[in-house]
Amino acid sequence: MTTEMQADTRAFQAALLDAQTRITAHMDMRLGGTDRLHDAMRYAMVGGKMLRGFLVLESARLHGVDATAALDAALAIECVHAYSLVHDDLPCMDDDDLRRGQPTLHRKWDEATATLAGDALQTFAFELLAADHIGPQALVLIRALAQSAGKDGMVSGQMMDIAAETAGTPLTLDEITRLQARKTGCLIEWSATAGAVLAGADTGPLQAYASALGLAFQIADDILDVEGDASKVGKALRKDETAGKATFVSLLGLEPAKARAEELCDTACAALSPYGEEAAILKDAARFVIARDS
Amino acid sequence: MTTEMQADTRAFQAALLDAQTRITAHMDMRLGGTDRLHDAMRYAMVGGKMLRGFLVLESARLHGVDATAALDAALAIECVHAYSLVHDDLPCMDDDDLRRGQPTLHRKWDEATATLAGDALQTFAFELLAADHIGPQALVLIRALAQSAGKDGMVSGQMMDIAAETAGTPLTLDEITRLQARKTGCLIEWSATAGAVLAGADTGPLQAYASALGLAFQIADDILDVEGDASKVGKALRKDETAGKATFVSLLGLEPAKARAEELCDTACAALSPYGEEAAILKDAARFVIARDS
Repeated sequence: MTTEMQADTRAFQAALLDAQTRITAHMDMRLGGTDRLHDAMRYAMVGGKMLRGFLVLESARLHGVDATAALDAALAIECVHAYSLVHDDLPCMDDDDLRRGQPTLHRKWDEATATLAGDALQTFAFELLAADHIGPQALVLIRALAQSAGKDGMVSGQMMDIAAETAGTPLTLDEITRLQARKTGCLIEWSATAGAVLAGADTGPLQAYASALGLAFQIADDILDVEGDASKVGKALRKDETAGKATFVSLLGLEPAKARAEELCDTACAALSPYGEEAAILKDAARFVIARDS
Repeated sequence: MTTEMQADTRAFQAALLDAQTRITAHMDMRLGGTDRLHDAMRYAMVGGKMLRGFLVLESARLHGVDATAALDAALAIECVHAYSLVHDDLPCMDDDDLRRGQPTLHRKWDEATATLAGDALQTFAFELLAADHIGPQALVLIRALAQSAGKDGMVSGQMMDIAAETAGTPLTLDEITRLQARKTGCLIEWSATAGAVLAGADTGPLQAYASALGLAFQIADDILDVEGDASKVGKALRKDETAGKATFVSLLGLEPAKARAEELCDTACAALSPYGEEAAILKDAARFVIARDS
């Protein structure tokens, strides 16, 4: 990361930290319960970057959305993201022992608890969005979340990923782009547009921003898998290479992958022009995504 | 089952069959897709009794609810029920090989597919309920479904069940009643009240009906585990006894358990009095639940 980039993203990092603090406090208030299931759900949420939740809060701020409704939506998307990680980490999927520098949920408790905590986190996301105070746009958000997270969105991306691994045939660039659009892109788009949806405003600019950001995010993830420091990232790295899995880096090469990520970052920032200076922090977020070291 | 009971429940069985046909056709229309994920989701749904979906359709009929909205809600609750069975059958939970007389989903495909198909079935349920045409009551239904299925409902019941098995201390009658109210009762109550909710009507009578029905259903399940024919039930039986698990039968004794189920059936039927003759088929359903052989 260059010094200039560090300066650029400092304001964003402060905003991200603030989002993490607010979303975590909101979770403590909304989640309740002290039994094993609630403890496991909380454990799955803690220590995440909460980039998706941040995008919700920021797009809500841009559209003057009520703060509590925005926090409910931000918490909801973090619940969905956390559930997907808990299930992905299971032995029958990616079989990971470490997540965010801590034992994965099934390592900390057991597989049954991880399966159920993941299930309950997904349900809780919809419960949060169906809260009375969110207003009539809640149904639009719920419908979009179900479409983004479900059988034609995130879960189908994960299924494609597993099917490709089982088949042993590396994916092409087109296939991996499609897979990642579903596995990662859909939820990022939901997050970045949530504020506009809640305000009943045009989602176009944020949709274009998020679409480029989502792909840049995944390319950066693949670069991180090759160049990253596992102790900073908090999970096992170089797994893709070991597994002979196609990634943006293996398909494009390291330097072209970096150039592509930069290009997508520029596209994302350009899409925000209708918001002018108000969107500075979202532009910083895009720069952070391609320059992060964890 | 006595001949009198068979006669009593014949009309109900025809209505149940009709509900199964309509819900399955609705699923074929709504689900789409021909990939492994969609195939697995379909597989998880087929062959079920669809009692919960039937309850939705019947309570919707009682309140003059639009047929498509009712079918969406009926399909949604069957998706949630199917997802819970797929995850419950996993090796890390009940480790079952047979369900509805067919290999369980993880036996037919693998554990990753079963985990993901279960996840996607849950998401799909919320997608169905968030459809535009359901109307403003959709949010109430979604909120109630999330509460019934989630961390303080079905999933918590399943967690209590697993925790009790791990602890090795059989549950008391109070504890098992509480557990079953969450694990089974919540979704049955959601189903039976869905029509009243969609119509914005009083849910009281159907709530009281479903509360008694849910408990009767579970007692009948425990009786079936002792007295049933595995080839008719379509899953492994006598597992509770082998595992030394407390059930209504082990706690009450076989005959008192049967008497309690009869009593609950009477309570359920009495609660329907505001509906008069219109509720005859729901009364038959209660009689069927305690007399079924599968």
